[in-house]
Amino acid sequence: MTTASTNKVRISIDAMGGNFAPVNEIKGTLDALAERNEYLELTLVGREAEIKKYMANILSEYKNELQIINADEVVTMHDSPADSFKNKQNNSIRVGLELQKSNLSDAFVSAGNTGAVLAHSTLILGRIEGIGRPTIGAFLPSQSGFTLITDVGASVDCKPRHLFEFALMCNVYMKNIFNIKEPKIGLLNIGEEKSKGNETAFKAFELLKNSKMNFVGNIEGSDVLNGKVDIAVCDGFTGNIVLKFAESILDLLKFKFKEYADKGLLKKIWIVMFKNTFKKILKDFDYQSHGGTLLLGVNGVSVIGHGKSSPLAIKNMIFNAENIVRKKINDFIKSELKNYILSFN
Amino acid sequence: MTTASTNKVRISIDAMGGNFAPVNEIKGTLDALAERNEYLELTLVGREAEIKKYMANILSEYKNELQIINADEVVTMHDSPADSFKNKQNNSIRVGLELQKSNLSDAFVSAGNTGAVLAHSTLILGRIEGIGRPTIGAFLPSQSGFTLITDVGASVDCKPRHLFEFALMCNVYMKNIFNIKEPKIGLLNIGEEKSKGNETAFKAFELLKNSKMNFVGNIEGSDVLNGKVDIAVCDGFTGNIVLKFAESILDLLKFKFKEYADKGLLKKIWIVMFKNTFKKILKDFDYQSHGGTLLLGVNGVSVIGHGKSSPLAIKNMIFNAENIVRKKINDFIKSELKNYILSFN
Repeated sequence: MTTASTNKVRISIDAMGGNFAPVNEIKGTLDALAERNEYLELTLVGREAEIKKYMANILSEYKNELQIINADEVVTMHDSPADSFKNKQNNSIRVGLELQKSNLSDAFVSAGNTGAVLAHSTLILGRIEGIGRPTIGAFLPSQSGFTLITDVGASVDCKPRHLFEFALMCNVYMKNIFNIKEPKIGLLNIGEEKSKGNETAFKAFELLKNSKMNFVGNIEGSDVLNGKVDIAVCDGFTGNIVLKFAESILDLLKFKFKEYADKGLLKKIWIVMFKNTFKKILKDFDYQSHGGTLLLGVNGVSVIGHGKSSPLAIKNMIFNAENIVRKKINDFIKSELKNYILSFN
Repeated sequence: MTTASTNKVRISIDAMGGNFAPVNEIKGTLDALAERNEYLELTLVGREAEIKKYMANILSEYKNELQIINADEVVTMHDSPADSFKNKQNNSIRVGLELQKSNLSDAFVSAGNTGAVLAHSTLILGRIEGIGRPTIGAFLPSQSGFTLITDVGASVDCKPRHLFEFALMCNVYMKNIFNIKEPKIGLLNIGEEKSKGNETAFKAFELLKNSKMNFVGNIEGSDVLNGKVDIAVCDGFTGNIVLKFAESILDLLKFKFKEYADKGLLKKIWIVMFKNTFKKILKDFDYQSHGGTLLLGVNGVSVIGHGKSSPLAIKNMIFNAENIVRKKINDFIKSELKNYILSFN
């Protein structure tokens, strides 16, 4: 998928996506080039005049590795995914993904409206043959490093086969991107016995048990953070609620800390020291630095970041996209799928 | 429901329930009597000989307020709820609840197998007329105090009417037990727009919106801890996973703290100070001190505690049970139900 002549991976970046667009997007892009310009060919997609305003003379510096492609419209965080596809045909997400569809780009990166990036990616790139639904996964810290929880909102009502496919795709991802030999896969449920949970979980259990993957069985909510598994599989309703719940823990802890400090329950001198240490420990909860959430199942490469992505997060998303392209993740997914007769429905 | 002559509330305690039974149960019971013996008449239910072994001469001290009723069998944490009901007919949960059924007791308290207490309570006490399913709620800390999340595992696959009933019952509870005038109720979902989520959530939204309760609409996972609502309503599958996830945060933070300390990333002298402060801040995550989770919808009073309940937690559960009896929570639920034509199905 890389350009044959240069072995560079061509990545389009949605310059208008995040809450701090286009500044963080531009910074992250330039930081990526500063580190790996010989391996990357980057395209910033968005309002050209606005982007150029921030770039001054830098463009000429990277004239072989960086270009800007104009897209007049911007999908906001409040736009409905379907409406933005229909009514904002020249938006930066769409233009960026069309480049990939036309084989002018290998991957797309956006910190924009997650639902819109998902919808555009599915509609423009299509699904991998044999995959019923794409999935979005996210990383949470755990006692053994981190856990990939999927789905976190792409597929709300899931059939057993969808949960199976999520596991299969994430298994390929974790094996190839993180070099985990046999990722431990758990099915998020309300008890460890195989008869537990709702009808969907019960049937998905059977599919996973009969696969060749390293399925450790049902896991409970407490097992996401304790390091028991590498991949926690669930429907997008459950996963989205767990992810947002997890993201809010930091705020509660900060609030509680402040409350105790204000009440004078902490010695003043400790507070400064404490804050710093606290920050270190809790940094791992800030999953965005892992390089965006994961969109798997579309017939192409699309990496979605948090709206508040920092330049570092954008840079990591670009490197992550490069990695997915180089490691041919989708090819592995396609070949894995052939091992299973997917006659569910 | 109290004994007319004495105005004492009669509460049966499952002496064999928790992980530290009967010790913590006995301690908690005695502590409750030490504080409120003129208002309580308590019965420890379980293996009489074993209980007496721990009580020595104390029994005679409280001869008007404390009795022991023998129950030979014990439901373990691993027993299936249905099997324990069928095959251990003389177990302490069953004997304790039969007392209530025979009007020899006003409430039951257990730190035992949650599923078994739920099943026994439903089968022995029955459901409140008009309530399709009982619900178990739990308390989590929040930026405004705490949030009651319900259901956390009693009803896995819920219909919209069940979610509505959970809200109605918890609304009564929060009004009368915590004196919150108009508890803010949120429907746990994956977005704030009313069209979001799965089919069940969509229909439950309509039922709640058309009620007289203070329904604030859909809430997201992040809103459980941020203090936006007093009551977060969801199905038991989602709620159970969120609750267990929340309970595991403490362990992860402790682990991370230790990891940083071991790596020498924290100055040794801070560690001791830090530990103490950390404990204070995180204590609120230890929801059991609130006095057990909440079982609502059965035609009687049954309070369920965590297996690891401390004597303090047992004591709080007893006081909570007393409160529920005195405030006639079930009568209020029955009268609230009359305000709604419950013709769902």
